Amino acid sequence: MRCAVISRKFDLRAYYGKALAQIADRIESVDHPVTDGAEAVRIALAWHPHADAFERYPNLKAVCTIGAGADNVLACPSLPSDVHVVRVVDPGQAQMMAGFVTWHVIWHQRKFATFMQHQRDRIWQRLEQRPASTVPVAILGYGKIGERVATHLTGLGFPVKAWSRTPKPMAPDVQGFHGRDGLFAMLAETEVLVNLLPLTPETRGLLNRDVFAAMKPGGYLIQTGRGEQMVEADFLSALESGQLSGASLDVFAVEPLPTDHVFWHHPKIVMTPHDACDVSFAAVADTLVATAAAIEAGQRPPHAVDRSRGY
Amino acid sequence: MRCAVISRKFDLRAYYGKALAQIADRIESVDHPVTDGAEAVRIALAWHPHADAFERYPNLKAVCTIGAGADNVLACPSLPSDVHVVRVVDPGQAQMMAGFVTWHVIWHQRKFATFMQHQRDRIWQRLEQRPASTVPVAILGYGKIGERVATHLTGLGFPVKAWSRTPKPMAPDVQGFHGRDGLFAMLAETEVLVNLLPLTPETRGLLNRDVFAAMKPGGYLIQTGRGEQMVEADFLSALESGQLSGASLDVFAVEPLPTDHVFWHHPKIVMTPHDACDVSFAAVADTLVATAAAIEAGQRPPHAVDRSRGY
Repeated sequence: MRCAVISRKFDLRAYYGKALAQIADRIESVDHPVTDGAEAVRIALAWHPHADAFERYPNLKAVCTIGAGADNVLACPSLPSDVHVVRVVDPGQAQMMAGFVTWHVIWHQRKFATFMQHQRDRIWQRLEQRPASTVPVAILGYGKIGERVATHLTGLGFPVKAWSRTPKPMAPDVQGFHGRDGLFAMLAETEVLVNLLPLTPETRGLLNRDVFAAMKPGGYLIQTGRGEQMVEADFLSALESGQLSGASLDVFAVEPLPTDHVFWHHPKIVMTPHDACDVSFAAVADTLVATAAAIEAGQRPPHAVDRSRGY
Repeated sequence: MRCAVISRKFDLRAYYGKALAQIADRIESVDHPVTDGAEAVRIALAWHPHADAFERYPNLKAVCTIGAGADNVLACPSLPSDVHVVRVVDPGQAQMMAGFVTWHVIWHQRKFATFMQHQRDRIWQRLEQRPASTVPVAILGYGKIGERVATHLTGLGFPVKAWSRTPKPMAPDVQGFHGRDGLFAMLAETEVLVNLLPLTPETRGLLNRDVFAAMKPGGYLIQTGRGEQMVEADFLSALESGQLSGASLDVFAVEPLPTDHVFWHHPKIVMTPHDACDVSFAAVADTLVATAAAIEAGQRPPHAVDRSRGY
């Protein structure tokens, strides 16, 4: 089956070439814009596709996006309404995110920012250490990744709450919340807020002054969802007032983050360049093969998103 | 029961006063040197006691040391040979150490030192991310703390090995080693080496050039045992040659670390001031009460160390 490889942000072939080579006998991958045989293209691998990208492929049935978030493909104006949008679900990705989030929770709990400043200043000073049981963490978004993150944090002794749009069964020791009332009830007992939500119309701008104000004073934000979910001015005000004591940011409204952006050298922010977790080559290859098989069988591909819901 | 509070390094009452106040109806605590009624002192709470401290207390039966390591009391020349030395065993301490070690393992795995340098330099650059399954970790010392650390790391997907002096049953997914041959067999497959060993004559100087040379090239050391276990010159050579790519140090041969020591500003070292984990007030209080009860009953107190072995 022929697969178009499409991105206006990123050289997908340079990065995922190994995965595409592994499945070359099954999936013929061709870089966008495909000039010869575009009508034979039935699936695509995409990340931030060009606005008009899909006009070229009349027989396209499914688009696989790299990673857990499908918003980058769903936002494309030329995406036909009957094309499946498929997420790459990688068990290793949930594990990688669990490690990443755990690191930032402990960074805050154990005051590593202060330790590092003390090392630079050659100051030997023990700091009052808080047991994990006194640092309540709340997770926004409770899919496979959220559940894995929650489980690791409860294992380290953190009290963990999780919020999802609709009620969901929770892992042991994880207290579940849902809906708008549930969100604010949870925030009142939250010191560290971890955002893992997908970008949808409902989550755009969710991390705003109301949310920060509802958290416990001196709270901490770990932002690994999407940049568009955070209102930057509200966030900076919350840092300024001390309502937030700090934040870990992996995603930004504009990426790469512009060199003159205030986040880079803000003393209360630790940042990474949208690198919290990558899907593995094997998971990308498996997703393409499973999607091709489903399309040939006339079935809905595994991990196709509900387009009305956005994830 | 009367308890002497003894330290030449640290104001124990200032730090543990709350714990002592909670049990004041059961344990009468008096600061060393006790001038009035020294013969009534039957137990002590100590941390690096003065060399002659125990000469003053003819009826002493047990000394409780704060924390997991008893070497600071065992090294005291005036400690009578028939006095029990009791460690404070705090389940929360194992959990706190698990979080601390996990943080440093992920710091190495996820290249956070580079991310932080990039943030200072305003460089947006994704880094190749390695799944936990490709970063083998080995733990030296497999008591209650070692087991807890190992369990958390396997939960995050790291391959975990553990070494103990004598063979021990291991948690699921943890590969056990023991003895000198076992140590070097383990090191050959070790990238991150976590030292949790107690200080004994056998472990003094254990972290030397032979150990570093036996690890996988570009390895990483997490040192949370005792400073006297590391040969500093060998360690610095291993960093210099690249055999070690970096290290996290929490303990030092001389503490506080002298201001002019090369460790402070070494670009490959991240350090904390012997603060990896504290025991809780509750655990100190419980240990003193349990020790007093055992002494009154003429029994060996719980968590008394084997003095011939040193832990």
